[in-house]
Amino acid sequence: MIQGIGAAAGVAIGKAFVLPNWEWSLPDTQVNPVDLAKEFERLYEGIRTSKDEIEFIKREFREVVGPEESSIFDAHLAILDDPVFMSEIRGIIERQYKAAEVAVKEAIDHFVAMFDLLDDEYMKERAVDIKDVGNRLLKHLLGAPEVTLPSDTQPYILVAKELSPSQLAHLNPTYVLGIVTMMGGKTSHSSIMARALGIPLVAGLENKLSNPIQTGDMLVIDGDNGSVQLHPDEAMVIDYTSIRDKQHKKREQLELLATVEAVTRDGVNLSLAGNISSVKELNLALKYGAEGVGLFRTEFLYMDRDSFPSEEEQFEVYKLVAEKVGNHPVVIRTLDIGGDKHLDYFQLPEEQNPFLGYRAIRISLDRKDMFKTQLTAILRASVYGKVKMMFPMISSLEEVQAAKAVLAEVMEELEQRGVPFDRNIPVGIMVEVPAAVMIVDILAEEVDFFSIGTNDLVQYVLAVDRMNEQIAHMYHPYHPAVLRLIRMTVEAAKHAGIEVSVCGEMAADERSLPLWLELGINNLSMSPQALLKVKHRTLNTVAAEAREVAKACFRMRTSSETEAKLSAYAKVSGIALGSSEAKEKTS
Amino acid sequence: MIQGIGAAAGVAIGKAFVLPNWEWSLPDTQVNPVDLAKEFERLYEGIRTSKDEIEFIKREFREVVGPEESSIFDAHLAILDDPVFMSEIRGIIERQYKAAEVAVKEAIDHFVAMFDLLDDEYMKERAVDIKDVGNRLLKHLLGAPEVTLPSDTQPYILVAKELSPSQLAHLNPTYVLGIVTMMGGKTSHSSIMARALGIPLVAGLENKLSNPIQTGDMLVIDGDNGSVQLHPDEAMVIDYTSIRDKQHKKREQLELLATVEAVTRDGVNLSLAGNISSVKELNLALKYGAEGVGLFRTEFLYMDRDSFPSEEEQFEVYKLVAEKVGNHPVVIRTLDIGGDKHLDYFQLPEEQNPFLGYRAIRISLDRKDMFKTQLTAILRASVYGKVKMMFPMISSLEEVQAAKAVLAEVMEELEQRGVPFDRNIPVGIMVEVPAAVMIVDILAEEVDFFSIGTNDLVQYVLAVDRMNEQIAHMYHPYHPAVLRLIRMTVEAAKHAGIEVSVCGEMAADERSLPLWLELGINNLSMSPQALLKVKHRTLNTVAAEAREVAKACFRMRTSSETEAKLSAYAKVSGIALGSSEAKEKTS
Repeated sequence: MIQGIGAAAGVAIGKAFVLPNWEWSLPDTQVNPVDLAKEFERLYEGIRTSKDEIEFIKREFREVVGPEESSIFDAHLAILDDPVFMSEIRGIIERQYKAAEVAVKEAIDHFVAMFDLLDDEYMKERAVDIKDVGNRLLKHLLGAPEVTLPSDTQPYILVAKELSPSQLAHLNPTYVLGIVTMMGGKTSHSSIMARALGIPLVAGLENKLSNPIQTGDMLVIDGDNGSVQLHPDEAMVIDYTSIRDKQHKKREQLELLATVEAVTRDGVNLSLAGNISSVKELNLALKYGAEGVGLFRTEFLYMDRDSFPSEEEQFEVYKLVAEKVGNHPVVIRTLDIGGDKHLDYFQLPEEQNPFLGYRAIRISLDRKDMFKTQLTAILRASVYGKVKMMFPMISSLEEVQAAKAVLAEVMEELEQRGVPFDRNIPVGIMVEVPAAVMIVDILAEEVDFFSIGTNDLVQYVLAVDRMNEQIAHMYHPYHPAVLRLIRMTVEAAKHAGIEVSVCGEMAADERSLPLWLELGINNLSMSPQALLKVKHRTLNTVAAEAREVAKACFRMRTSSETEAKLSAYAKVSGIALGSSEAKEKTS
Repeated sequence: MIQGIGAAAGVAIGKAFVLPNWEWSLPDTQVNPVDLAKEFERLYEGIRTSKDEIEFIKREFREVVGPEESSIFDAHLAILDDPVFMSEIRGIIERQYKAAEVAVKEAIDHFVAMFDLLDDEYMKERAVDIKDVGNRLLKHLLGAPEVTLPSDTQPYILVAKELSPSQLAHLNPTYVLGIVTMMGGKTSHSSIMARALGIPLVAGLENKLSNPIQTGDMLVIDGDNGSVQLHPDEAMVIDYTSIRDKQHKKREQLELLATVEAVTRDGVNLSLAGNISSVKELNLALKYGAEGVGLFRTEFLYMDRDSFPSEEEQFEVYKLVAEKVGNHPVVIRTLDIGGDKHLDYFQLPEEQNPFLGYRAIRISLDRKDMFKTQLTAILRASVYGKVKMMFPMISSLEEVQAAKAVLAEVMEELEQRGVPFDRNIPVGIMVEVPAAVMIVDILAEEVDFFSIGTNDLVQYVLAVDRMNEQIAHMYHPYHPAVLRLIRMTVEAAKHAGIEVSVCGEMAADERSLPLWLELGINNLSMSPQALLKVKHRTLNTVAAEAREVAKACFRMRTSSETEAKLSAYAKVSGIALGSSEAKEKTS
């Protein structure tokens, strides 16, 4: 049994297919000085083709998996625009008269060696990205065929030294049962993508194998605890097959719950809505029985374009979503770029701490034209369903007032245009900056609803960037500080008589259910993938019992006590599901 | 009257001295291929000399001005280690057989052009740094003399296109009355340094002058409002001379207060301590009458070195500080690196959001040997004065308990070594992460005192990096969320019967005084430079009156209302001082 890093959950059993490395022979001819211009033209053509290809993969991936994951490819596009990388390539062609492909290869090697030298996870990940993009460019320059994976064989477990996001994007999940990589860890781009695709992945096996894995070798991998068994015996295969089948069966059973109401055993009704970024995701949410959309992330309408989307374009999407959702509410959040989300055509300043920077409503209030266009489109859509409007990243009363002033202006203009809209459209805010919680009583007087964004809230209140591997273990949604902030928000909302919901990842963690029941939060919004497991947990919970558990949690002094209590409760009630049960079993 | 950006406060009146640009003629000889190795040796020698020189300037500057400002030169040292910049230079020598100085010049031009292209304040500042470092390297390669400023003439107002930190570091404040630059803004490195040196500076005059300023031209500049008058008439000179003299006189009067107690007109006694980073700063604090040290930032003992300081080295410094302070307390804060503070010999990972990253106690608890060495040195010094120990960046109960467990271990070891120490040394924490405030009642049971670090607290609670120019206007210490968090902290401290003090920049803002009086915070710690103005304000305040003002502030809904109220109160009582009065006059 070899111990690696469990990077994407699930068990896989099958034969290994070892991915060959991308290796091509390069021409060693010199470029004739009079042909330099031609060589540059070849290079630029290769860059253009590579960019188009990456854009295509990105779009495809976003449709299939989701927008957050597809943004990984932005880093790739950025490399092809990086002036230092590009000037290195041009320099080699220009000064040494080498062919474009040789120059690209040398530049890749140079930068990869440099980043690798730094012995730092983050930089190593950058090196993987450069290699990935560079090899794509090389492929186009050489006119080499794409390295494809077998799709005419039996399903297999893919084994690779490292796997780049674009290699992963081409995988057909039907054929890839699981993945094993020598390099990488939980936060590698490829791990994030494997989790999104639902493919079990064990990473970090380098130096742990006495003999390399060969294509055809039998493997059992467990992405929950990171174990890999080479040449498992029959008993082990039987054991793991049963675990895997149980995991699969639970998934199937869950799907039957889509049309069932989310109600606890003692009759408390919850409303579970979906977080979406596209119509495709909305369809998934509706398929899984979402009662409306609790968070429509509109920034993805702004991405992969050359300019801001027009009023008309936005209106069409908002209208379509509102109509599809029908009688349930759709909460449309205004543009939330900045931080880790960028637009190609709207240059944001380089920031030392982008999460504490120029983001979301801060940008919207600065770029009033863009903001007005969006508000206009939302208002116009408001007559086609139960549309609500929400502002992200609010940290002061002035911001809410400023945003509402712009809204009033837009309403005035629509009235003059004679365009119908819902003058009483509910207006709410994301409660995600600690300052918003601290003045939540003041803000409650200004808005119609709160939506608690636990991801950012946890990040800010603990001063922990959860994307930072070095301190990711300190990112604790169950920290007593977080629970108290959530309680403050709920109390202020109740006092003001306005609605409050939770739309962060805590809502998707079924162990949190006792907290919501105790606080009296009935509206949860989550990624479509989480809807059924939270509903299943709700159906198997006695609210009165869960509230007692939550009461104890609110008295706890540390996140680990609370997490242990909530996990234990989920276990005792004997209804843990899928990967979370597997996790408890093996850890 | 020309309107620029007021980047360092104060009025200056005098003749212009226009700084010539650093321009040298470069050799255009080719390097003989057999001499390439020699040329590289020259380059490396130049880099070594430049590094030594920058290290020297940095040390010097730190002693004279302060450690925060001197860290500007770290960016310069980093450039000389930058693999991309250096490989560009080497490439030009190696491939084009150009002389080292030509290669350096071409590399500078290349990178500066690249950064300038990006049209972004941050990148432009990087371009200034590269130019500065590159020119220094060029100077050494050419053996050119340092461009020096006249020191045998009358004092002058320095006029430059842009001023690099190293040029500023060489200025003699006795000769430089003020500075005018065409480029730059409030957050330029040179502006930060000018503020620290107390030299008025107006920046950003480019394209605002119909004729360039000539050496010898008479100027009046006002660093508070950013105005520059070329060839002022007599009446204006008289006006501004009187303003300037008033500013200077106030400064002198203030110095008389050093030995006076800080007590309000109705008898409330405050204890004003100093924030220090070195013995030099301690001397300044004591000169200005500090009652002890409220914050000893020990990270500066760790900087400018090749390895961690030994127990003995640290002990000597802590002992010296404890002895010099005598009967007053000295609060020694354990290492607070990470964020924007780095050590050359301790490689921190590259982080996307360093302020939300691997910092302070998070590092100490990971690097137990280093932490134990520091705790041992502090404990050993504890018998030489009233030493207290403080942990930075606490965000959970577990962290406090873990730090205290290490402390207990260290005490055990000292006992076995038979070394004397204060077993009852007071142990406290910085309250600067919002999570710490939210669980401040829990933390109060574990420690002997709190020190509120308002700088980071404001930053985290508002999600605003105050170094980020784009959103610096959103950094509001008087935000109601901040005031409520401070009040929560004080209430928990009172309830637990432990001491609470404030050591962030809010303590140095004399307008805050009513808040401290209302909350019953009697211990404030601040930069030595702020001690006298806060004492002056205290002496001129009636606590009973100030408390009424503060009560109103705690009811306010926005930071601007609160700031206006506190500023107005400071104005009404007619005792505004120095630059803050000038600011009110002109804004």
